[in-house]
Amino acid sequence: MTGERITAKVLFEPTPKDPILVCGMPGSGYVGKLAVDHLIESFKGKKFTEAYSNDFPPQGNVRENGVVSPIAGEFYMCETGQKRDLLVFTADAQPATTIGEYELSEWVLQLAKKHGAKLVFSLAAYITGAFTAEQRVFGAATSLELTSKMSEQGVRLMKEGAISGMNGIITGMAKFYGMEGACLLGETSGYLVDPVASEAVLDSFSRSLEIVIDLASLRDKAKEAKQVIGQIQRMTEQESAGRAGNPSGQPGYIG
Amino acid sequence: MTGERITAKVLFEPTPKDPILVCGMPGSGYVGKLAVDHLIESFKGKKFTEAYSNDFPPQGNVRENGVVSPIAGEFYMCETGQKRDLLVFTADAQPATTIGEYELSEWVLQLAKKHGAKLVFSLAAYITGAFTAEQRVFGAATSLELTSKMSEQGVRLMKEGAISGMNGIITGMAKFYGMEGACLLGETSGYLVDPVASEAVLDSFSRSLEIVIDLASLRDKAKEAKQVIGQIQRMTEQESAGRAGNPSGQPGYIG
Amino acid sequence: MTGERITAKVLFEPTPKDPILVCGMPGSGYVGKLAVDHLIESFKGKKFTEAYSNDFPPQGNVRENGVVSPIAGEFYMCETGQKRDLLVFTADAQPATTIGEYELSEWVLQLAKKHGAKLVFSLAAYITGAFTAEQRVFGAATSLELTSKMSEQGVRLMKEGAISGMNGIITGMAKFYGMEGACLLGETSGYLVDPVASEAVLDSFSRSLEIVIDLASLRDKAKEAKQVIGQIQRMTEQESAGRAGNPSGQPGYIG
Amino acid sequence: MTGERITAKVLFEPTPKDPILVCGMPGSGYVGKLAVDHLIESFKGKKFTEAYSNDFPPQGNVRENGVVSPIAGEFYMCETGQKRDLLVFTADAQPATTIGEYELSEWVLQLAKKHGAKLVFSLAAYITGAFTAEQRVFGAATSLELTSKMSEQGVRLMKEGAISGMNGIITGMAKFYGMEGACLLGETSGYLVDPVASEAVLDSFSRSLEIVIDLASLRDKAKEAKQVIGQIQRMTEQESAGRAGNPSGQPGYIG
Repeated sequence: MTGERITAKVLFEPTPKDPILVCGMPGSGYVGKLAVDHLIESFKGKKFTEAYSNDFPPQGNVRENGVVSPIAGEFYMCETGQKRDLLVFTADAQPATTIGEYELSEWVLQLAKKHGAKLVFSLAAYITGAFTAEQRVFGAATSLELTSKMSEQGVRLMKEGAISGMNGIITGMAKFYGMEGACLLGETSGYLVDPVASEAVLDSFSRSLEIVIDLASLRDKAKEAKQVIGQIQRMTEQESAGRAGNPSGQPGYIG
Repeated sequence: MTGERITAKVLFEPTPKDPILVCGMPGSGYVGKLAVDHLIESFKGKKFTEAYSNDFPPQGNVRENGVVSPIAGEFYMCETGQKRDLLVFTADAQPATTIGEYELSEWVLQLAKKHGAKLVFSLAAYITGAFTAEQRVFGAATSLELTSKMSEQGVRLMKEGAISGMNGIITGMAKFYGMEGACLLGETSGYLVDPVASEAVLDSFSRSLEIVIDLASLRDKAKEAKQVIGQIQRMTEQESAGRAGNPSGQPGYIG
Repeated sequence: MTGERITAKVLFEPTPKDPILVCGMPGSGYVGKLAVDHLIESFKGKKFTEAYSNDFPPQGNVRENGVVSPIAGEFYMCETGQKRDLLVFTADAQPATTIGEYELSEWVLQLAKKHGAKLVFSLAAYITGAFTAEQRVFGAATSLELTSKMSEQGVRLMKEGAISGMNGIITGMAKFYGMEGACLLGETSGYLVDPVASEAVLDSFSRSLEIVIDLASLRDKAKEAKQVIGQIQRMTEQESAGRAGNPSGQPGYIG
Repeated sequence: MTGERITAKVLFEPTPKDPILVCGMPGSGYVGKLAVDHLIESFKGKKFTEAYSNDFPPQGNVRENGVVSPIAGEFYMCETGQKRDLLVFTADAQPATTIGEYELSEWVLQLAKKHGAKLVFSLAAYITGAFTAEQRVFGAATSLELTSKMSEQGVRLMKEGAISGMNGIITGMAKFYGMEGACLLGETSGYLVDPVASEAVLDSFSRSLEIVIDLASLRDKAKEAKQVIGQIQRMTEQESAGRAGNPSGQPGYIG
C-alpha cells in the first residue's frame, strides 16, 4: 500500500445486470448510511471488494467482542431479482482530506463503471438544524431527464448551491466517467440518527427508478424515531410558547 | 483520475494566432473572473479543455434547475479577428491547497505554451478594504519591457510586495516556461462584486496590448455598481462626519 | 529520498525464527516505547533497518554531546533463544500527518511479513487522565482466537471504540497483509512516563505468547514510579477531602 | 513541473574544489540568510541552479521596479581561492509543509553530494527572545570530530533538544547521504534582523574550517545594529528598574 493512497482487496468479481451504483456515506443523521445498509440487508448484498485509503482517519475500529479492524470502504453486489441490480458502496468513515475524498470518489466511480454501471445515485442528508414533521426529499442530477424523473416523484429540485463532500463529488464526476449521476437528500435535523429521512430517500429512489424495495423493517425504526422527534418537538414548542417575542425557537426552520 | 492530481478532458484542439494566455480566477470582488467572463462572452469563446483537480474544494455545484456539475477549470479559445488570439483560463474555484495552486498554475502554463502562447496575463483584484471613487490599476511583470509598456498606459507599477495565489504563481512561473508574464490588478474594496474594477483592468489590458475589446455591456454593469458604491460612500461619509475625533472612517483607505 | 515518502537504510538482513512483530511508539506515558526499549535491551536487539519518513516532524534531534541525528524509525532483531524471535519496531516520533501514519504502518507490516512474521503486537497506552492503584491491561485483536488467549491471561477486552494512531492502523491492517494483529494497552494517567504500565503490558505479552522476558530492571523503574504516583494520589485525596460536594476529584476515573 | 514537487533549472555545471555545502534560510533574525548572502557577495558567487518547490508559499514576489518572480531556491558556486570552495544554498522562503521541508532538504543534499561535497554546514539562529550583549554561537554536528573542532573555536555545544526546520533536517540527514553535517546557531532575540549574530556565526565557521572570510562589510552592518540593540537594552533596563518586584523584564533571558 506504500506509495498508493487507495488499495483494494477483491473478494469476488460480480456480474450484475444493468447495475446502478448507489453510495451512502456516514455523516450527520446517518441518512445515507442507514439507507444503503437497508439496501444491503434487504437484497442480501454480498461484499465483493474492500478499499483502504491512506486518507481515512488514522485508527483501528474495535467491535463489541474486542475484535479490531481497519477503517474500510466496502462494495456490495445486490441482486434485486428485478430489471436492474445494485452495486452499493459505503464506508466506515469519509476520508479526512480533500484529495482523499476526490480519490476515493473516483475509485468508486471507476470500479462501478468497470462493472457496467451507467447510472450513479448518492443518498445523503439535507441538514436543516430543526425538527420538522415533514419528510421532504431534495434532489439534483447531471441531466434534465433525471431531474424531471425525480421531480415527477415529488423530489424537490435543489436551486443554486453545493452538495458537499463525497456525495457532491460522486454525483458531479459521474458525467466525467460517461455516466449519469443523481443525489437524493433527505431532510433531517442533523442532531439524531434519522431513519425517517432514510425511508423517505429510499422511497424516492424506489419510485424514480421503479425498483421495488421492502421498506418494512426501516419503517419500524422510522416509527420509533418519529415518536422521539415528536416528543422533542412538543418540548420545543412548549419552550417557545413560554418565550415571548421569539415566535420561532427553531434555528434554520424550513416551513 | 486516481493517482493524478489533475485530469484534463480535451474537447477540441484549438489553432490560435500568436495567442496570449489570459487567466482570471474567482476571488474577492470577482474582478478577474468578471473580466475573463466578459472576454469569453464578447469574443464568443469556445471551451476546448476542462481540468479537474483533486485539490479543488470537495463538492458538486448545483445550478438553477437542479443540474449538478463538478468543480472544474475551463480553457476557452477566443478568436479576436485581430492580430492575436486569446486563450482564456478560468475556474469555478481556486484549489484548496498550496500544492494544488502550484500544480494547476503549471498545468495552465504548460497547455498555453503547447498552443503557442509566449505571453501570459493574469487579471486580478487589488483589495483595499475601502470604497474609493478612483479606478486605479496596479501591475507587475516579468520583464522591464512589459512593465514600461503597462506604465505608459497608466498602470501603476507595484513596489516590493507579493501577489498571492494562482495569479502570483502564474505570472512569476511564466518565465520558467520560457514565456513572459504580467499581472493587472484592479483596485477594489473587496466587499462587493466589482465590475468597475474589471472594466478598468480590461481597459488597461486592451491598451497595453493593442487589442480592441467591446466593453459596452461591462460598462452598463459598472454604471449600476458605481451608483451602489456612491450610495455606500455617501452613507459612510455622513457616518464619519457624525463621529468626532475619527477623521477617516475607512479602513485601509488609499488616497 | 525525493519523491518517496519513506526511505530505508538496510544494515543487515536478519533471519529470525517464527518471528513476532512488536511495535511501540512514543506517546502519552511512553508506555509502548518503554516496553519495546526494554525488549531491545533485555534481548540485546540488533538494529537491522532504519526508516526515514518525509512526514516525520521536520527537525534534527540533538543528543547530550551535541551530536545531531535525523528523526528515524528503527527495526531491531531480538533473538530470544526461545521458540519465537521478535522483530521490534520503534521510532523517535510518530509521523505528523494521517497519510504518514498509514504509510509508515504499512512499510513496517510489509517488512515484518517479508521476514516471516505472521503475528503482530502493538504495545500502547490506555489513557485515563487519573492516577490509579490498579495496573489494568486492555486488549483487542483481529481474531477471536487471539482475544480469548489474551482474555485468559487477565487482559480486559475493549468494547466498541477505536485505537487511534499507528497502534490502531498496524493492528487492524495486519489482517490485510495476511497476518494476525493484537494490541495491548496499559492503563496510565497520561501525565507521567509510566514504567508501571509498561511492565504490566509486557507481563501480559509474555504470558499470552509464552515468551519469558526478564522484567527485573523494568520492575525497579516501576517501583520508583509507583512511589511517585502514590505520593500524588495521597495529595490528590487530601485535596479532594478538603473540597465538599465534589466526591471525586479525579477526571476520567475508571473504577 | 506537474506531478513533481521540486523542479530544477540548471544554469551551469560547477566544478568546485573539495567543496563544503553551506545553507542559510530565511527565518527569525535572518541570521543564516544574512550570513550566506555575505558569503555569496564576498566570494562573488555564481548562481548555477534554481529550484522551484510546489510547497513554497503560493505567491509571486514583486521587486522594487514592478518586476515579479516566483519563490525560488538558489545554489551558488563560491570560489574561495583557498583550499576548499563553497556551494551555498539559500531561498526566498522555506517550504510551507513538512513534506516540502524534507524534500527540499534532500534535493539540496543530493545535488551537493553530486558536486563532491562531503561536509555540510547549516547557518541558523538561536532564538532567545531577549536582547543580550553577548554573541554566543551554539553548535551541533553529526560526528564527535566535528563537535570538538567547533568546541575548540568557542562554539557552545547544544545539549539535548532539537534543531527545527530545514536546518535540522539538512544537518541530520547529511549522514544518510554519506556526508558529515554541522549546524552553527547565532544567539539572537528573534525580534530584529541581526547582522551581529550573522557575523558571529561566520566567524565561528571561518575559524572551524580555516577558511578566510572578509567580514568587513558585515561588521559595518553589525556595528549599526549593535547601537540599535544597545538603545533598546537601555530602554528596557530603565523600564525594568521602574517596575518593582519584577527583577527581570526580559522574557527567556539566558544569562
